[in-house]
Amino acid sequence: MKRIFFILTICLISTGLLAQQNLDFSPKAEVVSPQINKDNTVTFRLMAPNAQSVKLQGDWMPSEGWTPKLQDLQKDENGLWSFTTQVLPSDLYSYTFIVDGLKVLDPNNVYQVRDVATVMNIFLVEGGLADLYKVQNVPHGTVTRCWYDSPKLDSPRRITIYTPPGYEGNTDKYPVFYLLHGMGGDEEAWMALGRASQILDNLIAQGKAKPMIVVMPNGHTSNTAAPGESDKGFYKPDMRTPDVFSGDMEANFGDIIKFVEDNYRVKSDMQSRAIAGLSMGGFHSLYISANYPNTFDYVGLFSPAILPPANAASTIYADLEAKLLAQKANGYRLYWIAIGNTDFLFQNVVDYRSKLDEMKFTYQYRESDGGHIWANWRLYLSEFAQMLF
Amino acid sequence: MKRIFFILTICLISTGLLAQQNLDFSPKAEVVSPQINKDNTVTFRLMAPNAQSVKLQGDWMPSEGWTPKLQDLQKDENGLWSFTTQVLPSDLYSYTFIVDGLKVLDPNNVYQVRDVATVMNIFLVEGGLADLYKVQNVPHGTVTRCWYDSPKLDSPRRITIYTPPGYEGNTDKYPVFYLLHGMGGDEEAWMALGRASQILDNLIAQGKAKPMIVVMPNGHTSNTAAPGESDKGFYKPDMRTPDVFSGDMEANFGDIIKFVEDNYRVKSDMQSRAIAGLSMGGFHSLYISANYPNTFDYVGLFSPAILPPANAASTIYADLEAKLLAQKANGYRLYWIAIGNTDFLFQNVVDYRSKLDEMKFTYQYRESDGGHIWANWRLYLSEFAQMLF
Repeated sequence: MKRIFFILTICLISTGLLAQQNLDFSPKAEVVSPQINKDNTVTFRLMAPNAQSVKLQGDWMPSEGWTPKLQDLQKDENGLWSFTTQVLPSDLYSYTFIVDGLKVLDPNNVYQVRDVATVMNIFLVEGGLADLYKVQNVPHGTVTRCWYDSPKLDSPRRITIYTPPGYEGNTDKYPVFYLLHGMGGDEEAWMALGRASQILDNLIAQGKAKPMIVVMPNGHTSNTAAPGESDKGFYKPDMRTPDVFSGDMEANFGDIIKFVEDNYRVKSDMQSRAIAGLSMGGFHSLYISANYPNTFDYVGLFSPAILPPANAASTIYADLEAKLLAQKANGYRLYWIAIGNTDFLFQNVVDYRSKLDEMKFTYQYRESDGGHIWANWRLYLSEFAQMLF
Repeated sequence: MKRIFFILTICLISTGLLAQQNLDFSPKAEVVSPQINKDNTVTFRLMAPNAQSVKLQGDWMPSEGWTPKLQDLQKDENGLWSFTTQVLPSDLYSYTFIVDGLKVLDPNNVYQVRDVATVMNIFLVEGGLADLYKVQNVPHGTVTRCWYDSPKLDSPRRITIYTPPGYEGNTDKYPVFYLLHGMGGDEEAWMALGRASQILDNLIAQGKAKPMIVVMPNGHTSNTAAPGESDKGFYKPDMRTPDVFSGDMEANFGDIIKFVEDNYRVKSDMQSRAIAGLSMGGFHSLYISANYPNTFDYVGLFSPAILPPANAASTIYADLEAKLLAQKANGYRLYWIAIGNTDFLFQNVVDYRSKLDEMKFTYQYRESDGGHIWANWRLYLSEFAQMLF
C-alpha cells in the first residue's frame, strides 16, 4: 500500500497542472474538532492565527433573551484557538464558530445540518439519549425519496419514506406513521435534524417500537420539494411561504395516503395509521386528524403551533369543536400532546388543553424542559414511536 | 398572513428565554451570494467588516502547480466584500472563501457538497451543460438508500439505487447500470457531486437515455457506508483505507448484482448490464468486467486509475491479459475510456490503450479538456448514459 501511495503522491506533485478532485492527501496530523472527551466534555479547536476573536455558539448554551450567548475560545502561541465545555448530557448538538464577527463552520467537521437558511455543524455525545440518534450496528431500514401526484397542487411532490428492516425480504403488511415537519422544514427535516431513521432502526432493534413505515411529506404546498431539490433551483430557503394556514396541506393529505397505500404493503385501517408533527406539523396533525374521521388511531402534537387561523378561508379550519366532538365520539387510541416548558408556544398549548378538558376529550400530556428545539422533537419522536400500533 | 407573522414575531421577542429552532425571521434584505448574473458572470459577496483579506477559491480558477490560485475580493465602505467573475461556461461549480487565511463557507449559500474531508459551496450556471445537472420540471426517478448483505465482507453494506420515472406504476423490467465512485467517494458521491439522478431524469425525459436502474455501491470494503452513515459515527473522512487494491470490492461484486436482481424488476442478461466508474471506480470497472465473463455488455472507464497492482495478493489482478482476451472473444457492445488531457493519470491511460491496441481489443476513446475533476465525470456520465441499452 505504501508504495502505491508513494507513486500516487509523486504523480500528484509532478503533474498538478490543474486541481485534481476526489483525492485528498493532506497530512494526517491535523486539528481535531470537536473532540468528545471520555468524561463527555467536548473540546473545540480552530487554527486561526490571524483572528482577533474566536467565539462558539452552540445549541446547548443558554441564551440571553433572543440573543445567543457566545463562548470565547482561547488562543495559544501557534494560533490554535480552543475551548472545552463542561460535561454535556448525551444528545445531538449543533454549533458554529464566530471569527471576528463572521459565522464560520468548523473546517475539521464535515457533519452539518441545515435549519431553514442556517447551516450548522453537529456532533453526538453518546451514553444516553443520543444512543438512539446514532447509527448502531443493528438492521437498518430503507430510506426512499420519491415523487407522488397531488392533482390539485403543484405536482408531483417529493416525499421521504422509511421502510423498516426486513420489508424487502417478506410479504408482511405494515402500519404507517405520517410524520410532519415544522414551518422551517421540508421532507428532509425529520431525516437530517430529527434522526428519524436512526431512532426507528434502534427502537425496532430493541423491540421497543413495532416495525412500521414512516412517511415524511413536504408540508409547504407552495414548494414541490426541499430547497435545491425542485426546479426552483438553488434559492435561499425562506419559511415565509404563502401556503401556511391556507389549508391546502390538510385538504390534500388524502393524496399522500393514497400514494402510500397504492405503492407500499400497508395495513390500511385506522388502527394502523398514526400522524404526528412538530410545530406547524403539529398544527397540521391536529387539523388533519380532525378533518379525516376514523382515519388515525394515534395523533401526536409536538410543540404544536396552535395559532388562531381566524378569517382563514379554508373550511379545514371551520367548526373545529364540532370536528373534535366527532373525533371523540368515533374514538381513538392515543392523542398525545408534548411541549417544552420554555417554548414560546407554551400558552397556546395550555389554552388548547383547556378547550379539550372542557370537552372531556381525552389526551396524554408530556411536558419537557427547554424550548422550541430539535432536542425536544427527537425526544418526542423517540417516546411517541414506542406507543404506536 | 401578515397578522400571523406579527403575532409570531411578538411571541418570539417577548419570550425567547431559550433559543427556538426551525424558525428564522431574519430580515429579508440580505447579502446575495453567489449571484448568477444574466450574462453568466457570477458575483460573490461576503459581509466581513473586520476582515483584512477575503479571497475566493473556485474549481473553475486555474491553479499554479499543486497550489490553487486565489482571487481577491474588494471591500466597500460597509465592510461588504465582493468580486465578479468573467463569463463562466455552463456547469456546476464549487468554491469557498478564504478570510484572513481561514477557509470559510459562504454563509449566504446553503448548497454544499463534501469531497473527501472538504466541504465546499456549489452553484449552477445554466444555459448549456449544467441544464442536465439541474432539477428540471420533468418526471423524476426514485432514489433509495438501503443495505444489502455481502457475507464475506463486513456487512450489511449501504447502497444507493436510482429507479427511473414510472418504475412504481408498471410491471416492466429494466436494464441496470452499476456506477462506481473514486478513492475519495462513497455511495453518496455520484448523487451529491455527480448529479446522477438529475442527469438520468433529464436524459430520460429528453428521450436521449433509456429508462434504467442505476446502482451506486460503496467501493471501500473497509467501510460499510459513507462517513456518518455507519456505526463508525462522525469521524473525519480519509480515503487512505486499507481496502484499495485488496481485490475485495471486485471479488464480492456478485453480492451487489444478486441483491439488485433479487429486489428490483431487472433484465438479468448481459445486454442489460453496464458498469462504469471514475478513477478508482474505473479501475474497479476494468477488473470487474474482466473477471465476470459475459456479465457486462457496456463498460466505462472514466479517468481510470489504472495503477499497477504488482505483488497484489488477490487473484482478481492476476492474468489480466488472458482475461481481456477472453472478454474480447466473448464480445461486448461498448468499452469506453475517457480522460481529461491534464489528468495526472493521463499517461497510465495512454499505456493501457497501447496494451489494448496490441491485443486488438476494441474500445472507444474520449479525451476532454481538464484534469481529474467532477466536471469531467458529470460530462462522461452524461455521454455514456446515452450510449447504453
